[in-house]
Order: sequence, then structure tokens, then C-alpha cells
Amino acid sequence: MQLFFADDIQSDFCTLSEEESTHCVKVLRLGAGDTLSITDGRGTLCHCHILDPHHKHCTLQVDERISDFGRHSFSFHLAVAPTKNSARMEWLMEKAVEMGVDRFTPIVCQHSERAVIKRERLEKIAVSAIKQSQKAFKPLIDDPTPLATLLHQPFDGQKFIAYCNGDLRVPLRDCYTPRSNALILIGPEGDFSDTEVQEALASGFNPVTLGQYRLRTETAALAATAFFNLMNGD
Amino acid sequence: MQLFFADDIQSDFCTLSEEESTHCVKVLRLGAGDTLSITDGRGTLCHCHILDPHHKHCTLQVDERISDFGRHSFSFHLAVAPTKNSARMEWLMEKAVEMGVDRFTPIVCQHSERAVIKRERLEKIAVSAIKQSQKAFKPLIDDPTPLATLLHQPFDGQKFIAYCNGDLRVPLRDCYTPRSNALILIGPEGDFSDTEVQEALASGFNPVTLGQYRLRTETAALAATAFFNLMNGD
Repeated sequence: MQLFFADDIQSDFCTLSEEESTHCVKVLRLGAGDTLSITDGRGTLCHCHILDPHHKHCTLQVDERISDFGRHSFSFHLAVAPTKNSARMEWLMEKAVEMGVDRFTPIVCQHSERAVIKRERLEKIAVSAIKQSQKAFKPLIDDPTPLATLLHQPFDGQKFIAYCNGDLRVPLRDCYTPRSNALILIGPEGDFSDTEVQEALASGFNPVTLGQYRLRTETAALAATAFFNLMNGD
Repeated sequence: MQLFFADDIQSDFCTLSEEESTHCVKVLRLGAGDTLSITDGRGTLCHCHILDPHHKHCTLQVDERISDFGRHSFSFHLAVAPTKNSARMEWLMEKAVEMGVDRFTPIVCQHSERAVIKRERLEKIAVSAIKQSQKAFKPLIDDPTPLATLLHQPFDGQKFIAYCNGDLRVPLRDCYTPRSNALILIGPEGDFSDTEVQEALASGFNPVTLGQYRLRTETAALAATAFFNLMNGD
């Protein structure tokens, strides 16, 4: 299945964006009558055929429409402090989307080295990754959020905070119940401050470890994402 | 602990390489009498102090020597088909070393898009990653190896092959016994051929899945590495 992205696929006809048209017609050399699939990143997947293979505005007719394609019963919310080097965040976004993440919140912490993200770039990477991994749900990408704000938002599921030192922590594998909703907090390179950890624990977050090694921020986020994917996969 | 790499640390005195000397003296501005640690990547970790903070050949005296620093009782052997884009292999190497890998074998498969690796670059990334994650063991990086050769090498532990389609596969989480040695095979973008899968099964490899999504080669390798790290960590 060759999957394309189209923001609006509510009618039975659809015109691909210039970028997607070029990829479809010029790169893949698809022509009139050829079949392909499109998603809006909000759960809808349509199988289509090409009416007009125009290289700037390729038009399609929808043959079959599927709602909630690949929806699962649990959700994974990854909250991570942006790394100084934004390429590391971009790489994390690609991998997290491939492995499955429903919501991505950049968090601003006491030791944060960066409080902004390149949002447009992250959205583009997320679209690219859902196409590559054949998903119809693009994760929700939040604006950078102060940690305290996130700590006090309601969350219907298990909440975890991963950090580097402290006696209270247990391995994530020993406290996650497969197929339950999960929210995990991953701190900046300088880790969460003691105050932040205390506030998280007071807000019902479980203190966890992600193995025995000191991991970079984006590696810790990736390890957690891989874990939830492997624990919940078929 | 600020960790440096030095290939030869057998005597009680050590001279850092030009690159490490520059990092130590020019970047971190360490001076005579300051303490630091060095590893040879073969398990030895030495705590030292600086005798002469020369920016090209900084000399150290060893104060304490630890053998087999951080050795664990199980080993993880990752065998993966090199990706077309070598930057993806380099990311994988960095992350795999951080999360813990003992041996890395690039495998050459029927559908391989690339049969060579930039070995010197991968070695350099591995050294950098052990320093960053405070390890004293650098993984063994093999030369590219035909899959058939690897299949017939003896391995004392559990052997797995991850691939995309087939009824025999079970989730990795359901067949790995924590703290046992593991070898996992990750195929190229075009996946293993049916013949290759059959040969692996005949050689005692267990067919596994890494979750429900189609993952890129390097993402699958990272997911498997994260899994073994999380299952075996303290």
C-alpha cells in the first residue's frame, strides 16, 4: 500500500498537494487508473484511484473509506524536555511515530536547555513517518508546556516519571500494566530537579528507571516508546 | 565522572591522544592535579589525575584501576542489515551503545541495499557513546558478514529473527528469558527472503515480532535493543 497524506478527504474526490502530487506522479510515476491510499492523519484511510495524474494537483476518486484505521484501545503520551540539538528531537519524532505515540508534549523544566521546538518541522516529520509506517493517526504535538502545567492536567491512565538518581525508582517493566494508557515524563540532559521529582510524585506519577545505563534524553524517550510498543503489540 | 578513551592503559602512566588531550585541556580546561577517568573499551576503568596538562599529549597518573567495570552476566548480539543511508546506521550505533550492545554484526542479505559499512566512523561513534554513557566495554564491531555465515556460527544463548510477515512469529516479549544471552537478526528494508527465514528457523532461530507496526530497519534494531536493556536492567 502506497500511502499519501491529504488534509481534507471528506468528499469522494480529492486533490493532492503539490508536494504529494510531485511524489506520486514524477517520482513514483503513477498514472490514470493506478491505485493508492490516502490518510488525513485523523484516523481516516481511503483507497483511491487516480483520475488526473497532474504533477502539481493530482486528482483522485475514493473507492473505499475506512474510519479509525488501526485505532487501539490504549494511548501513549510522551512528554520530553527538548534537547539543545534540535536534530535529536527530529530523529526522536520520526522513531516515536514509527513505534507508536499518540501525543507528544515538549516540556519546559528547571534544567531545560531549550524551551522552543521547530514545530512545523516536527509536524512534517510526523506526517512522513505515518506514511512510511502505514498509520492513519498522526500524533497530537503540543506547544512547549511548563512541567507544572502538565503535572496538574488530568490523565486517565498510568503516569510515570523517569529520572537518574533516587531510591524510590523501580524498573518500568515492573509497574506498567500492558494495554493501559500511559504518560511518561523524560527530563532534560541535567535531569529533573529534586523539587520537580517531588511535585511529580505528589501528583501521582510513579518513579521509574529505564535500565541500568545513563541515557541521553532522546534515547530515554525512545527506550520508553519501544517498551510500550513491545508490551502492547500483537 | 568525566570519562576519556585511551587505547593503552596498562602502565600506571598514560598519555592521552591528541584529540582527547585537546578535549581535556582546551575544551574542559582541566589542569595539573585535576582528576578524570579513562577506559580502554575492553573493560578497564582507571581513575587518574593529570600530571602534565599538555593540549596535544596530556599525561596522567593512574590512582585506581578497576577491571571488568560494569560487566554483566548476559550478552546482547545485534545483527542488522546496513541501511542504504549510512547516517541511519550511525544513529543506530550511538543509541545501541548507549542502551547496551556487546557485539554488532552488519549482515549481508539477499535484499540488502548495502553490503559495506563506514567502519572507522562507526568505531568512532561507539567510542564517543561509551564515554557519554560511562561504559568501559566498547562493543565488538564485525566486518559485514553474509547471513548464511552468521546462521551457522555457534551461539550460546537465545537466537531470534524478526521479520514482517508469517504465521509462526510470536511477540519477542513472550519468548525471551530475561538475563539470557540473546542474538537477534534484523533484515534490510526489503525484509529477509522466504529462503533466508527458512534457513534461520532450521538453524534454531525463533521467529519474532517487535510490535504491531512496520518499522524501518534501524528502528526495529533500536526497539529490540531497548527491549533487552529494559528487560535486563536493574
